[in-house]
Amino acid sequence: MTKNKSKGIDFPVTCSPRGACPRVSRAHYKTWDRCDLTFVELAQDTAVAGVTTRSRCPSPEVEWCRHALQHGKARALVVNAGNANAFTGNRGRNAVEAIAAKVSDHLDCEPHEVFIASTGVIGEPLPIDKAEAGLDAVFTADAARWKDAARAIGTTDTFPKGATASAVIADTTVQISGIAKGSGMIAPDMATMLGFVFTDAAIEPALLQDMLNRAVAKTFNCITVDSDTSTSDTVLLFATGKAGNSPLAAMDDAGADAFAAALEAVCLELAQLVVRDGEGATKFIEIRVEGAESGESARRVALSVANSPLVKTAIAGEDANWGRVVMAVGKAGEPADRDRLSIRFGATQVAENGLAVDGYDEAPVAAHLKGDNIEIGVDLGIGNGHATVWTCDLTHGYISINADYRT
Amino acid sequence: MTKNKSKGIDFPVTCSPRGACPRVSRAHYKTWDRCDLTFVELAQDTAVAGVTTRSRCPSPEVEWCRHALQHGKARALVVNAGNANAFTGNRGRNAVEAIAAKVSDHLDCEPHEVFIASTGVIGEPLPIDKAEAGLDAVFTADAARWKDAARAIGTTDTFPKGATASAVIADTTVQISGIAKGSGMIAPDMATMLGFVFTDAAIEPALLQDMLNRAVAKTFNCITVDSDTSTSDTVLLFATGKAGNSPLAAMDDAGADAFAAALEAVCLELAQLVVRDGEGATKFIEIRVEGAESGESARRVALSVANSPLVKTAIAGEDANWGRVVMAVGKAGEPADRDRLSIRFGATQVAENGLAVDGYDEAPVAAHLKGDNIEIGVDLGIGNGHATVWTCDLTHGYISINADYRT
Repeated sequence: MTKNKSKGIDFPVTCSPRGACPRVSRAHYKTWDRCDLTFVELAQDTAVAGVTTRSRCPSPEVEWCRHALQHGKARALVVNAGNANAFTGNRGRNAVEAIAAKVSDHLDCEPHEVFIASTGVIGEPLPIDKAEAGLDAVFTADAARWKDAARAIGTTDTFPKGATASAVIADTTVQISGIAKGSGMIAPDMATMLGFVFTDAAIEPALLQDMLNRAVAKTFNCITVDSDTSTSDTVLLFATGKAGNSPLAAMDDAGADAFAAALEAVCLELAQLVVRDGEGATKFIEIRVEGAESGESARRVALSVANSPLVKTAIAGEDANWGRVVMAVGKAGEPADRDRLSIRFGATQVAENGLAVDGYDEAPVAAHLKGDNIEIGVDLGIGNGHATVWTCDLTHGYISINADYRT
Repeated sequence: MTKNKSKGIDFPVTCSPRGACPRVSRAHYKTWDRCDLTFVELAQDTAVAGVTTRSRCPSPEVEWCRHALQHGKARALVVNAGNANAFTGNRGRNAVEAIAAKVSDHLDCEPHEVFIASTGVIGEPLPIDKAEAGLDAVFTADAARWKDAARAIGTTDTFPKGATASAVIADTTVQISGIAKGSGMIAPDMATMLGFVFTDAAIEPALLQDMLNRAVAKTFNCITVDSDTSTSDTVLLFATGKAGNSPLAAMDDAGADAFAAALEAVCLELAQLVVRDGEGATKFIEIRVEGAESGESARRVALSVANSPLVKTAIAGEDANWGRVVMAVGKAGEPADRDRLSIRFGATQVAENGLAVDGYDEAPVAAHLKGDNIEIGVDLGIGNGHATVWTCDLTHGYISINADYRT
C-alpha cells in the first residue's frame, strides 16, 4: 500500500440508508478551496448512540454530544473540518451553541437533537460567522453523495473513507452505512477520531448504544497510528427507523445478532481505512496476540507492539528485526514468560519458546515484509486470551506531515 | 544541538576513582573496527548497587546481575557492545556464565563478583569464542582512558558520555565518575540502557542501593527518547572504598547527604547526555509539570507529553503547535481540569485557564523554538505535585537510523 495505491481504495457507499441525507458546503475554515462543512439531515425520531474520547481535555463539541446523547434522539449532524475548536474556552462553547441554535431553528427541533463534531487544529476558536455562513449555504445545497461528505469531513486524509453493509431483521432488509476521517492523532482505548454510521433500521436507543459499544471495542478501539489521542474523537451511530422493521429492543430479538454483526463489519472497515490512511503509512500491519492471560491483556500487549516506534520503523525499512517485537512484548508490563514466547511474521515462525527457531531462514520473512499487508503473530503461551489490533508503519512521511502541520 | 555540535560535548572524566581501572579490547561482535569489549577491574571488597529493566523479556545479563547483586560485592564489570544477547535461551545464558567463569579465574574471585552487560541487536546469541578472545586481549591490555571505555560501550551513540563529581565525607574527598550509553530504545520508569557509576567512597551496600534508587528515580527514570524500553537496561554503581573515608551506613551519617547529591548530579548528567544523543535528535526538550495531584501524576503527564510523536515532530519543525501539548495532557489519563490548564513555551505563557492567553504573540515562542534547548511548562492548577522529564525531538534522522538498523 502506498499513498498512490491507497487513493485507489474503493468508496462503497452508493445508496443512502433511508432517512439520512447529506449535504456539504464551504465554510472556509482554512484558506483552502474545498467543502469543509457537512450537514446530515435525519428523519424525525432517529435514535442515536455514541462514544467519545476519554481525553481529559475534550473539545466543547465532545461535551455537547455527551449531553445530547442523554436524550437519545437526533435530527441532524454537523461536522466542521479544519478547526477542532478544542481548548477554546467560552468562545468555543458559544460557537457550538450557535450552530445548534441555527440548525434547530431551521429544522424546528430541539437543540439537543443536533449533533456536532469538529476536527483540525487545536486552540483556535471556531469562527461563528464562518460557521453560520456555511450553514446558510448548506441548508439550500443539493443532496450530496456520501463520498463528498466523507471528503468534506477529512483533514490530512488522502482518500474518503466509507463502508456499508446490510442485515435482515425479520424479513426487512436494513442498510448500515458509515463514513470516517482520521490519519494522525489516532490512538486506541478511547474511541477514535470521527466516525459516523447511519442505518435505516428501527432500534431502541439503549440497545443501539450497547451494540455500538461492543462494535467499537473490537474495531475503532483496536487501531493506532501514532499513540496520540485526539481531543475530539467521536463515533456516532444514527438509526432513522425508516426501513420499517419492528423496532429492535434487545439482543435476543430476531435480527439483532445479524444487525450487530453487520454493524461491527462496517465499523471494522472504517477503522481499518483510518489505519491504511495513517499519516505517512506505506504498510498496513495486523498484530495478533494469542495465549495471553486475558483478552484485555492480549490487547495491551498487541498495542505495545503496535505503538513501538522501533517496530514500526523496522517494518517501514522492510527489516525482519523481530527482536524489537520481543522488546515491545517485554515492555508492555503484562503477564508474560520470555521462555514460552513465540513470534511469527506472516506464515513464518521466527522464534519459539524464548529463542529463534532452529535453522531460522529469513528469506520468507523478508519476502513477506516487501508486501503491503504485514502480519505479526505473538503467542505468549500462558493462557487463552487473544486480541487483534491494526496499525501502520512509521516513515519519513509522518515526520514531514507533522513537523510543519500548521503552515 | 545538532549531531555535529553534539560531538563537541565535553567528556569530563579525567581522573579515576581509586580502585577502578578500565581496559578495552576488540571482540569483533560486529564487522566493525573498534573496541567493543570493556573490562573494569575493581578493588577487593567493592560494594555494588544496581537497577535493571522492568521488561518481562530481560536479557540473561540482566538476570545475572540481579542474582549477583544479592551478594553486594564486585570485582569486575564486563560490557559487550554490538550484541544484546537477549532472547537467546540457553545459549545466551551459557555465554554469560562462560564470561563470569573466565573473569573469576583470572581475578581469583567468585563468579558472582563479575557483573556483565551487553547491548546491541536482540535475538542473536553472544558468540562465546569472540567473548573469550576479547577477554584474553583485554586482560593484558594497558589501562584505558574512561573516554575510551565510554566509546567502547556505545552502539548508535554519536559521542562518549561521562560525568564526574566529588563529595566530602568527614574530611575525605571522594570521587564519583560514571559512563553511559544509549540513544534509542530509551524509555522511562524501568531504569534505562546502560549506565555505570564508580566511586572510591566506602559505603555499605544497603545504603548504596538506597542512594542509587533515589538518584535513578529523578534522573534515568525521567528520560525518554522513543518510549521503547530495552531488554537490557542496567545501571550499576560500584563503591571501591579506596578513598579511605569511614564507611557510610545510613543517610544521617556525616557526608551521606553530600554524597547522595553528588551521585544524583552524576546520574542526571549521564541521563541528559543520553537524551542529547537521542537517535536523530536535533533539540533537547525539558518538560516541567506543576500543579498536579501528586508528583507521580505530574511525572505521568510529563511523560505523556515527552512521548507524544505529534509534540516531538512539531518541535522538530520548530512549530509552536501548543495544541498538541493540550492533546498529550488530555490523553495521559491523570486528574486534570481543562479549564485550569496553563502552558508555557520557554518564558512565554501561551495558554491559561483553558484557552490561549489574550493577545497571544507567537513571535517569542517561535524564537525559543529555533534554539537547541526547548522548555515546555505545564501547570495543571489542581494540586502541588511537580516533576521534570527530558526528551528530544522526533526527526527524519530517527526514521533513517531505525528503518534499517541491522544492515
